[in-house]
Amino acid sequence: MDREQLFEQIKKKKSFLCVGLDSDIDKIPKKLKVYQQPQFAFNKEIIDATAKYTVAYKLNLAFYESRGWKGMQELELTVAYIRDRYPEMFIIADVKKGDIGNTAIHQAKAYFDTMDFDAVTVAPYMGEDSIKPFLAYEDKWAILLALTSNKSSSNFQKKRTVLGKSDQAGYPLYANVVVTADVWSSTKPDNLMYVVGATNASHEVKFIRQLVPDYFLLVPGVGAQAGSLKEVAKYGMNEQCGLLVNSSRGIIFAGVGIGVDEKQFATRAASAAHETQQEMEFLLKEKVSIWFLNFLKKPRFFTLAFLF
Amino acid sequence: MDREQLFEQIKKKKSFLCVGLDSDIDKIPKKLKVYQQPQFAFNKEIIDATAKYTVAYKLNLAFYESRGWKGMQELELTVAYIRDRYPEMFIIADVKKGDIGNTAIHQAKAYFDTMDFDAVTVAPYMGEDSIKPFLAYEDKWAILLALTSNKSSSNFQKKRTVLGKSDQAGYPLYANVVVTADVWSSTKPDNLMYVVGATNASHEVKFIRQLVPDYFLLVPGVGAQAGSLKEVAKYGMNEQCGLLVNSSRGIIFAGVGIGVDEKQFATRAASAAHETQQEMEFLLKEKVSIWFLNFLKKPRFFTLAFLF
Repeated sequence: MDREQLFEQIKKKKSFLCVGLDSDIDKIPKKLKVYQQPQFAFNKEIIDATAKYTVAYKLNLAFYESRGWKGMQELELTVAYIRDRYPEMFIIADVKKGDIGNTAIHQAKAYFDTMDFDAVTVAPYMGEDSIKPFLAYEDKWAILLALTSNKSSSNFQKKRTVLGKSDQAGYPLYANVVVTADVWSSTKPDNLMYVVGATNASHEVKFIRQLVPDYFLLVPGVGAQAGSLKEVAKYGMNEQCGLLVNSSRGIIFAGVGIGVDEKQFATRAASAAHETQQEMEFLLKEKVSIWFLNFLKKPRFFTLAFLF
Repeated sequence: MDREQLFEQIKKKKSFLCVGLDSDIDKIPKKLKVYQQPQFAFNKEIIDATAKYTVAYKLNLAFYESRGWKGMQELELTVAYIRDRYPEMFIIADVKKGDIGNTAIHQAKAYFDTMDFDAVTVAPYMGEDSIKPFLAYEDKWAILLALTSNKSSSNFQKKRTVLGKSDQAGYPLYANVVVTADVWSSTKPDNLMYVVGATNASHEVKFIRQLVPDYFLLVPGVGAQAGSLKEVAKYGMNEQCGLLVNSSRGIIFAGVGIGVDEKQFATRAASAAHETQQEMEFLLKEKVSIWFLNFLKKPRFFTLAFLF
């Protein structure tokens, strides 16, 4: 899927939601646990319930590989199910890969060829040659960790780096990652995105958006991790939306847990997704209004204004 | 397996070799490709041929997941085979994981509980809370990327970071990672190791050894990547050896390729492993001699001198 097609979906669904299928076997409804393929059974219901409110699904490998190859089989069945029923969907393998070139070639093959994902999350620590094999695929994406949503992102990501050949003086590591990776891809924002956690300060999201105005940002940390969707939209949205905001537990387990009627788990996931989509529709419209006002003051080309 | 047990194996086998089972399906001998489980068939023969020369096996997930769940099944069968036949072996999952705490708990569960590995390689970019769940397992290990063997390790790992709360002024990022992670584990060198590529400069290996004198270092980059075993031993070895040096392609594919009689692939892998073990035995003895000379000049307690 290319950038234009992704933007088309966002416009059509009035949503930039990505649902994270973190389908923890210990948390799915009890009635599904007796199934031969319990995670796949859960995912099918969640997908059918949420597909009209979301433009992407993200599958974090950890929740499948914790069951060994059987879990991996259910992950593959899930991807095939989405491809078959909802071919418009953008599907992300959340694996945070990073390895020497020879190995990275096999990783790209695993997730793009064997498993048919659209995108793979990757980690920057090992540098360019660990990412390039993912960028070599046409219409597939590498999504590079820049500033993550967890507390200890401050351990290294926010450390200031000293001026080097390709750096900016005193930039924190995450900004250094963003500007360094910007030159790795020949097609630039057409097959590279960045991960920017919603739990970070507004000025950090704003800073990244200034560094890479055209790139899509994949934003985790809304929902269970308590990041603000409104802030992210305010500082992160660009003229092609430029955001995929992920929510996992807050949606898929909205109808699961103590004191909840678990029969309704899919309906409740749908409601949670719908609610988020409604908020996103509002934020998209709001952004368009602001741009339109600016346009009246200082006319220039932009795209989103003609959507709504 | 604890540190003492690992050291016992090194003394017993006079080897600190780790064989990397990067069993690329496209490279294994043709005659095995017709098998139902070709990678597992290849691994069994390689393991039986090399076990007496090596103290560890490392399985890089990429070479298995590129075949989807079937490859993962063969990876699990391989681990079970090693556990059953060679219970003294240290088994590493090379996955370079790093994710938010909730996800990392599932990753640790996957590789330590479901798949019974001894150690998992992890990436530092997301900081402490992405590594802690691995350190919570007794007698299991997290092996943290510090300075990797690939060319673009210089992109970020060698960038200087500015003095921060827990840092040393002007340290390159890799050194910052090493000293920061040193306080994450309560048992310190008993369940944490560092990855230090053999392709890096001697002064860098020496520097890391100074920063963490007691830790084991997992050293890739010897063999196909052309790092020097001799240099690594000179600057990286400590009194409990403190090194696991990995070779993958140089051993497992020693008897595979154009113009090679592939019937002999296991025998040739054994020869390559034996040759490396011989070199390691020599380096261990040489180091002991140096320590012994130093001991004569300035007596103090040390361990390796009594081995040979």
